[in-house]
Amino acid sequence: MAYIDLNSDLGESFGPWSMGDDVSMLSIVTSANIACGFHAGDPAAILGVLKEAARRSVSVGAHVGYRDLVGFGRRNMDPSSEELIGDTIYQIGALQGLAKVARTRVRYVKPHGALYNTIANDARQAADVIAAIQAVDSSLILMALAGAPVVAQARSSGLTVICEAFADRAYNADGSLVNRRLPGAVIHDPEVVAARMLRLVTEGLITAIDGTEIELEAQSICVHGDTPAAVSIARTVRDTLVVGGIELKSFTDG
Amino acid sequence: MAYIDLNSDLGESFGPWSMGDDVSMLSIVTSANIACGFHAGDPAAILGVLKEAARRSVSVGAHVGYRDLVGFGRRNMDPSSEELIGDTIYQIGALQGLAKVARTRVRYVKPHGALYNTIANDARQAADVIAAIQAVDSSLILMALAGAPVVAQARSSGLTVICEAFADRAYNADGSLVNRRLPGAVIHDPEVVAARMLRLVTEGLITAIDGTEIELEAQSICVHGDTPAAVSIARTVRDTLVVGGIELKSFTDG
Amino acid sequence: MAYIDLNSDLGESFGPWSMGDDVSMLSIVTSANIACGFHAGDPAAILGVLKEAARRSVSVGAHVGYRDLVGFGRRNMDPSSEELIGDTIYQIGALQGLAKVARTRVRYVKPHGALYNTIANDARQAADVIAAIQAVDSSLILMALAGAPVVAQARSSGLTVICEAFADRAYNADGSLVNRRLPGAVIHDPEVVAARMLRLVTEGLITAIDGTEIELEAQSICVHGDTPAAVSIARTVRDTLVVGGIELKSFTDG
Amino acid sequence: MAYIDLNSDLGESFGPWSMGDDVSMLSIVTSANIACGFHAGDPAAILGVLKEAARRSVSVGAHVGYRDLVGFGRRNMDPSSEELIGDTIYQIGALQGLAKVARTRVRYVKPHGALYNTIANDARQAADVIAAIQAVDSSLILMALAGAPVVAQARSSGLTVICEAFADRAYNADGSLVNRRLPGAVIHDPEVVAARMLRLVTEGLITAIDGTEIELEAQSICVHGDTPAAVSIARTVRDTLVVGGIELKSFTDG
Repeated sequence: MAYIDLNSDLGESFGPWSMGDDVSMLSIVTSANIACGFHAGDPAAILGVLKEAARRSVSVGAHVGYRDLVGFGRRNMDPSSEELIGDTIYQIGALQGLAKVARTRVRYVKPHGALYNTIANDARQAADVIAAIQAVDSSLILMALAGAPVVAQARSSGLTVICEAFADRAYNADGSLVNRRLPGAVIHDPEVVAARMLRLVTEGLITAIDGTEIELEAQSICVHGDTPAAVSIARTVRDTLVVGGIELKSFTDG
Repeated sequence: MAYIDLNSDLGESFGPWSMGDDVSMLSIVTSANIACGFHAGDPAAILGVLKEAARRSVSVGAHVGYRDLVGFGRRNMDPSSEELIGDTIYQIGALQGLAKVARTRVRYVKPHGALYNTIANDARQAADVIAAIQAVDSSLILMALAGAPVVAQARSSGLTVICEAFADRAYNADGSLVNRRLPGAVIHDPEVVAARMLRLVTEGLITAIDGTEIELEAQSICVHGDTPAAVSIARTVRDTLVVGGIELKSFTDG
Repeated sequence: MAYIDLNSDLGESFGPWSMGDDVSMLSIVTSANIACGFHAGDPAAILGVLKEAARRSVSVGAHVGYRDLVGFGRRNMDPSSEELIGDTIYQIGALQGLAKVARTRVRYVKPHGALYNTIANDARQAADVIAAIQAVDSSLILMALAGAPVVAQARSSGLTVICEAFADRAYNADGSLVNRRLPGAVIHDPEVVAARMLRLVTEGLITAIDGTEIELEAQSICVHGDTPAAVSIARTVRDTLVVGGIELKSFTDG
Repeated sequence: MAYIDLNSDLGESFGPWSMGDDVSMLSIVTSANIACGFHAGDPAAILGVLKEAARRSVSVGAHVGYRDLVGFGRRNMDPSSEELIGDTIYQIGALQGLAKVARTRVRYVKPHGALYNTIANDARQAADVIAAIQAVDSSLILMALAGAPVVAQARSSGLTVICEAFADRAYNADGSLVNRRLPGAVIHDPEVVAARMLRLVTEGLITAIDGTEIELEAQSICVHGDTPAAVSIARTVRDTLVVGGIELKSFTDG
């Protein structure tokens, strides 16, 4: 039987500001990318979502980001290798501490926002993140953009890599994501999104924005939870996959 | 043969700003209280000092503080229990991650600045810090002010507690520290400081500011390294103890 | 004809996190307490709400707070006088710069959260805030808790003070607010809230939680906008006052 | 009689961390670029240096930077126009407030670090900074890198621009600075540095690293004060210019 992982970004509240519907999303996804305090997430809020993830047996990953709270880690930055390695270890370690208290543990690392996009193609910053992960715990899995150069780079460095597809994003014929600023970059119809993902899981194919059929390796699908509409799409994707005979389980499960 | 631990606050540089002479102090002390990023310390700088501590086999503790960088954790705050527990776990975990990469590990926790002074007497905040330590790793030792109520509170909670004396501080007859704002609160003569500490280790006694001889339980002595004069005092204390036949070793050593 | 000012806390979004319904509240209130970046508010968001306030001719005040973003300025702190004076001037100046660009100007200062409560009774911190305001612009008005010692302190220092009542809060017989942790501290029924405020404006009286009728000097009423229910209460207060023949205008208007 | 301005970066201490010898530098320079809190500088420290600058009649500029404290504003970032405009106005306004209290006023704006280098050539970020300056006070002067595209861009936008040369930096034949990572990029000999600057002021010429004589328009010379050696170089530059018959005065003086 085919199976797939569903992941989402959680724990992104900060102090008085809440973001997303973490509890709902934890009933949908099998892996939770938890903010580590640099782009979002305060320790008490992170601990709360980790406890809920543990209770629901949702797998937990460190959603490490640039140190840019006001910019939510979405602005490009050029930290030195020393800074990026230190920042990555620090965030993973902090989440490991909180996860232990929540009776779970960090199983993977998914860089966030601008860091995610940068390491997809920037070999230097990718090498820093890879080195940091290996130094702190080489059994941690890297979650990365399907088809990006970082996948091979991390694997040749000895890391296990999980490739992810984005449920609601359009793809170019070369397998890259259509730039968010272009029309059609984001797909809003839950049924269309869900059907695309079911086909991706069963056939390994997705239709690019120009109509080309492309092959995409994906062991996980990223869904969002920051708006009620996003939660609804995520639930539709889940339900459609289940009805389609796909087992939903984390890549960290046997 | 009698022995004692010497501890100091290290890793307090931040970004472009350096503080203290960490390398010199690591040749003097047997335990290093390492900043965890909330009152001081950026990850790259912390990692650097951890590596040096590991190289010199200096024991490492988490110097956790209030989240108050500009105030250096020296301003009183009243975080909620949820916040204080989360912040404490987060800082310990972050340091554990960096320590692992530096091939050492966190052995104890010493609260910093205002948090240190507050938990000495404030049972609620003390309970939060104790709960956080026990949740993340109950084998972590708490370093606390000799004679303060927190010592018994932590021990009755099951934590191992190390009591420390302050080398250059005057004591009141009840064993508390003389308020820094009062004349004579800080002792500046290296020879006087060293002689007091030698007597404390060998006899368990220290002369209070009013001339009273008081007993003080101390398994560690805190020395400072933030100025060249402070480093010199620390070295004199060390040399005087060694010449006096005292072995210097961390309380974490067998 | 009697008149009163309605004020509310606005501009409290930060980076990706929004808070409150600023646009709705600007159609209700006559004075807007704008966050200045220390407890909430990023410059771009602040500028946006200032422009909207200017467009609607709503009077603008600097909502200065402790430097505690994650705690939203709600945690007690003990900054030095030098720090508190500097922080207060900095925040007022920053808002003045943004206000000028938005074609309005800062007319008053309302301390936020823990700073607001602290200066109500703490003469030292009150003196620091008063000194800062006078240094940067002695024509700025201080908005303070009706009946608190800070009112007389600021007036004797030469500042103009506006006293405010809290629409949805219960009062003790001595004119102080009932502690939020006690039952009945917050009044949730919009009609009750509105009726109390109409009586306060017309008769200068409010019924304390123990039934005592107390006199309260208030030139402004504080309403909240952080939830849809709060916005609804605010609107009911406004409508009830208007129907009751009260003119709503800022204390800064003629 | 020929004259020139000497400027330096001051007010870069933060909380417990001091940086540079501001008092010494204020006896050397005629213009002080004061940190505004985003890359360095806390309000109390900024206020202190502003008061000293006022006492010595040193002209004051806003040294605005990216919001990156740990990176000291030296890391490239890509804020949106809305963010960069807001951040620039906020910093200028905050400094204006503090300057007023210090009985001086902000006369010019010099972007710091990565922002300085970026706007030299990046027309979009340059336009944002220019727009922010014009919005808050169009009489503020922009201090920029001699020869960079931003100079013409700002002048065509209506701003007055002061071009500066860097005393201790080598120049390429095209008038750009030699990259710091290349050998010879920084000149350490105080006499050589001073002689180059005297020639620049008297003849308008400087010898590029390849021996080419280049013309450089400079109304100000930037000197550093972050180390004792830097202060010594700054003083030598000043003394050499004075002995050479050059009057030292700020470009803001008649």
